[in-house]
Amino acid sequence: MSVRILGIDPGLRVTGFGLIEKQGSRLHYIGSGCIRTASAAEDGMAENLPQRLKIILEGVAEIIATYQPQQAAVEKVFVNVNPQSTLLLGQARGAAISALVLAGLPVAEYTALQVKQAVVGHGKAAKAQVGHMVRKLLDLDGEPSADAADALACAICHAHGGQGLGALATAGRRVRGGRLL
Amino acid sequence: MSVRILGIDPGLRVTGFGLIEKQGSRLHYIGSGCIRTASAAEDGMAENLPQRLKIILEGVAEIIATYQPQQAAVEKVFVNVNPQSTLLLGQARGAAISALVLAGLPVAEYTALQVKQAVVGHGKAAKAQVGHMVRKLLDLDGEPSADAADALACAICHAHGGQGLGALATAGRRVRGGRLL
Repeated sequence: MSVRILGIDPGLRVTGFGLIEKQGSRLHYIGSGCIRTASAAEDGMAENLPQRLKIILEGVAEIIATYQPQQAAVEKVFVNVNPQSTLLLGQARGAAISALVLAGLPVAEYTALQVKQAVVGHGKAAKAQVGHMVRKLLDLDGEPSADAADALACAICHAHGGQGLGALATAGRRVRGGRLL
Repeated sequence: MSVRILGIDPGLRVTGFGLIEKQGSRLHYIGSGCIRTASAAEDGMAENLPQRLKIILEGVAEIIATYQPQQAAVEKVFVNVNPQSTLLLGQARGAAISALVLAGLPVAEYTALQVKQAVVGHGKAAKAQVGHMVRKLLDLDGEPSADAADALACAICHAHGGQGLGALATAGRRVRGGRLL
C-alpha cells in the first residue's frame, strides 16, 4: 500500500510544493515546483492581497487535482521580525491550508526544526544541507530548487511520522552529521 | 438598483460578519453575527489550526450562500505585539478572504482607521462609539454585538466608497463628534 504526500512551504511571493509517495519503507519522488504570485505583484498588483491569495488557492487546488495526494504536510512558518511581513505570510499560509482542507486532505504541521531533524538529523542544518539530503533520500538526478526542496523535506518529515531522523527513508543507509555515507 | 455588501472582521477565535444593502443613498440592515472557532479549541482542538481555518472557510461560505452578497469588505487587522498571535490572525484572515474569492466576490480592504472615519467621522473613536453609530445608521433596535458591529461598520465604510464620513448613510442627518444629532 502506498501513500501520496503533498508537502507545502507557504509564502506570499513563492509557495513551494513537493509530492512524494511512501511505499513500505521506500520514498519515491512524484513531482515538485512552486506557485509564484510575485509576477502578479510586478504588474502593479502588489497591494491586491485577495488576488494573490486567490492565486495560491487555485494553484494548490490545481496541484491536488493533478497529483491526487492523500495527505498533506505544511511547514510552520518563521515569525518574521517585521510584524507586517508576519501578517502577510500568515495570510498566504491560511490560503494554502484552506485549499488543502477544502479538498478534504488531512493536514499535518511541522516546524522547520522538526523538518530538519527528520531529513538531516539535526535542527541546525543549513538550507543547502536540506537540499542535499532531499536529493539523496529521493534519488534525484539534481538538486531541487530551494522552494521545492523545503516542501519535499516537509513531505519526507511527514512520511517519517514527524519524528527525528526517520527509520524509513534512511533504512539501510548510514548517516553521519546529516550526510549519507 | 441595490448592492448587498458583506463586511467581515476576521479573527482566529471569533470572525464577525455583517450584511447591509445600499439602495441609492439609503443603507438597510440585512443580518449579522459571528463564526466561533473557540468552542472547538476548548474541545482540545486548540492546536488544530487547519480545523479552525476550515470552520472559518465553511462559515463564510455558508453566509454567502444564505445572504447572496455582491461585494465584500474586510477589515485590515491590527498587527499584534505578539508575533505568534499576528501569525494566527493572519491565517484566519487568509481563510476568510479565501472563502470570499472562491465565491467570486470582489474583496475590498479597509483599515480600522478608515472604518472609524467612515462611520464615526474620526479615526480615534472608541469601540462603543462605533457600535452606537452602526445602530443609528442602520436604524437598529438595539446595539449589535461588538464583533458584528465592527463587521457592519466595515460594510458601511465600503458603502461610503471607503471615504471619510460618507455622504450616503448620513445624508440629511447632522453629525457632531461622531454622534448623530
